[in-house]
Amino acid sequence: MQTPLKIAVVGSGLVGSLLAIYLKRAGHTVHVFDRSQDIRTVEFSGRSINLAMSHRGWKALDDLGLGDEIREIAIPMDKRAIHNVGQSLNYQYYGKEGESIYSISRGVLNRKMISLAEEEGVNFFFETKIWDVTMATATLHTGETEQGEWGELDYDMVFGADGAFSRVRHRMQRQSMFNYSQEFLNLGYKELNIPANEDGTHKLDKNSLHIWPRHNFMLIALPNLDGSFTCTLFMPFEGENSFESLKDKETLKQFFAHYFPSTIDVIPELVEDFFKNPTSTLVTMKCYPWTYNDKVALIGDACHAIVPFYGHGMNAGFEDITILNQIMQEYGDDWNRIFKEYEQSRKPDTDAIAELSYRNFMEMSSKTADENFLLQKKIEKRFSEKYPEKWIPLYSRVTFSHRPYSEALAIGDQQKAIMNEVMQMDNIHELWDSIVVENKIIELLAGK
Amino acid sequence: MQTPLKIAVVGSGLVGSLLAIYLKRAGHTVHVFDRSQDIRTVEFSGRSINLAMSHRGWKALDDLGLGDEIREIAIPMDKRAIHNVGQSLNYQYYGKEGESIYSISRGVLNRKMISLAEEEGVNFFFETKIWDVTMATATLHTGETEQGEWGELDYDMVFGADGAFSRVRHRMQRQSMFNYSQEFLNLGYKELNIPANEDGTHKLDKNSLHIWPRHNFMLIALPNLDGSFTCTLFMPFEGENSFESLKDKETLKQFFAHYFPSTIDVIPELVEDFFKNPTSTLVTMKCYPWTYNDKVALIGDACHAIVPFYGHGMNAGFEDITILNQIMQEYGDDWNRIFKEYEQSRKPDTDAIAELSYRNFMEMSSKTADENFLLQKKIEKRFSEKYPEKWIPLYSRVTFSHRPYSEALAIGDQQKAIMNEVMQMDNIHELWDSIVVENKIIELLAGK
Repeated sequence: MQTPLKIAVVGSGLVGSLLAIYLKRAGHTVHVFDRSQDIRTVEFSGRSINLAMSHRGWKALDDLGLGDEIREIAIPMDKRAIHNVGQSLNYQYYGKEGESIYSISRGVLNRKMISLAEEEGVNFFFETKIWDVTMATATLHTGETEQGEWGELDYDMVFGADGAFSRVRHRMQRQSMFNYSQEFLNLGYKELNIPANEDGTHKLDKNSLHIWPRHNFMLIALPNLDGSFTCTLFMPFEGENSFESLKDKETLKQFFAHYFPSTIDVIPELVEDFFKNPTSTLVTMKCYPWTYNDKVALIGDACHAIVPFYGHGMNAGFEDITILNQIMQEYGDDWNRIFKEYEQSRKPDTDAIAELSYRNFMEMSSKTADENFLLQKKIEKRFSEKYPEKWIPLYSRVTFSHRPYSEALAIGDQQKAIMNEVMQMDNIHELWDSIVVENKIIELLAGK
Repeated sequence: MQTPLKIAVVGSGLVGSLLAIYLKRAGHTVHVFDRSQDIRTVEFSGRSINLAMSHRGWKALDDLGLGDEIREIAIPMDKRAIHNVGQSLNYQYYGKEGESIYSISRGVLNRKMISLAEEEGVNFFFETKIWDVTMATATLHTGETEQGEWGELDYDMVFGADGAFSRVRHRMQRQSMFNYSQEFLNLGYKELNIPANEDGTHKLDKNSLHIWPRHNFMLIALPNLDGSFTCTLFMPFEGENSFESLKDKETLKQFFAHYFPSTIDVIPELVEDFFKNPTSTLVTMKCYPWTYNDKVALIGDACHAIVPFYGHGMNAGFEDITILNQIMQEYGDDWNRIFKEYEQSRKPDTDAIAELSYRNFMEMSSKTADENFLLQKKIEKRFSEKYPEKWIPLYSRVTFSHRPYSEALAIGDQQKAIMNEVMQMDNIHELWDSIVVENKIIELLAGK
């Protein structure tokens, strides 16, 4: 048990709420601030991408004994369902038998997490705007407007869990020696919806993450509990086949009929939703350091916002908490040391998942429709089933593992080099399941 | 001539003052704002690195007919003078006969530029703090404090020439889709001073940039008009041989006696200056876009701050102005187009000089003391003198040229690959000035 402190968490999102529970259990007084209304009192905003919870996310919940409650609002997806035009559905399993990622609505999960935190004794202060932080004293500055009167709230420690556009980080950024980058993709996204059948069942296979890969753009759909799917269209802002090019109803309808014919019957509100829902941006944000003495620490998207193509934004944020908690166990009340170890140990891994996520757009939008890629996956799968100690595919290292992301990235790059050589073999399309290919991989692995 | 506009320039540094003259000559009303006092009324701060003006900087001055006036306050340096411990001075010429870079004191030049701009009819408003900009209307928000009352100043257009920590950019950064990065080196710098002899002459060779290369740290000295040199010590913040390690007088003196014995007699105020002058940081800052409609544009360090190891921060900023002015000539009053062309054409080149500057610390601090590097330079020099149309060394492409920085970087990388192969030749130390080496370079050039 640590000496009880008075701790403020800025941000009542998924990471802020879960962190609050961990801190409360460690014996601290925990106040969570959010500039927005209590999400339990509002409809969600129509700009969400469903979450895909996997091993790292579950661990942070299970370590508190909260996993089972959350599993009740999650739908397992054990495969990708690839929709190519004029072809039947192609299923690509994510992992081994029994391995799944889990679709959860962000809004549903967030409401649940806040209620769980309240039950633990965490205090929430909604519609309370934190404009600035005095880092040396962990003092929050709050007020109605940025230019108006501010009040002061004193804490022993402040966590910034306030997302990609964090105000707490904003203050740290004005320190000297603060490294920072934000880079936007030339790609936006828009939420669409596949409603449930009248009997409440799903219109598409419920246990799949559906992908309509179209190279420089794609549509995906993740299942909800109520029988609906939350869809996300990813597409360039400008150019041919872009959000800008889909100016009117007719163009939009023709575009969907041409590129996504299988969606026509299942997305009835296409036109309304498309023009009503915002087009959102995608950013990769990195920074360092993440902490200030024993007073302030950033966590989750506030210190490492990533693009969503590996489904790991929330998983990485939850794993931050797991790692921080492990270090808290080790160093007791030495928060200077806890914060230093936390940022130093965690930074390489969040850089790695940022890189993996960035790369994965290409995999989802193009490679899932590519025959050579599918063959390569089959070869990898066959080999790893026969030699599980020699080969764990990258996707499994990232998603069905607790090993560091940076290790997954490094080993993944080695495996990629090996598979590039394997795919160059003569007659690989005939030989792929032969001992020749198997020996080639073993030989290449030995050479690394 | 363009339609006269009312234009605000934020920042009265070198780039702000020069830009103001260009805009004034183009027929506009120009107001320059600076949060600091008029630099002509204050002593400079003891944290300056002398400027090394070269072709790109001179062009921006000469195009206005101001070059000759500035040449009067500049000292040509045609070579590096390398101070190795226990060896005699080693001179490395920068370019061809007659090619020099020019040492200028930042403070002296800035005072001169402001006076020149005033003579042209530019209005300066010092000690006027610009806290924010409303970009859509080119409105400046000014006041005594960030939290106090603000007044509004309306313009047709605003230029942010307010340096690496630009307030104008700060506002742009809050827009969506603004890419931004700042990265600090683990290296600081401190100003020191070599005073003039009693008769006003220089204590070291006046027409050299002096370098004491010591691998992970180095000292440099650039001449001033009054017989003194401005010295800069670059060194890691922490670790062995770092600013942190030089805690007291005795340690400092021993350190200089050991590593910089030739400076003992010429830096009499070492101890006083070292502990009085601040240790400053070094940052590379990149961003994009640089402009907002036809209302706001960033220029100089405000959109591309670089580390000083190529001596090109000011040269790159002045070249921004040359390029902007060329585009202004072309597109008249179409400022939307002027700003778009400006940012699109200029960005790859400022990224290139950022990369070149970053790499050049290694060249200055280590390679200038390396025999193989010196031999390589001799081979390059010999070849380029014989075949000037086939080989212009990288340093000359960057410094004695008006060709784009991005071209210099690309060709420099090709040349580096060629020289790596040449340096691998058997007996290169004997063969270096033979026809064999010459033919090898020609053969390798043909292969690229």
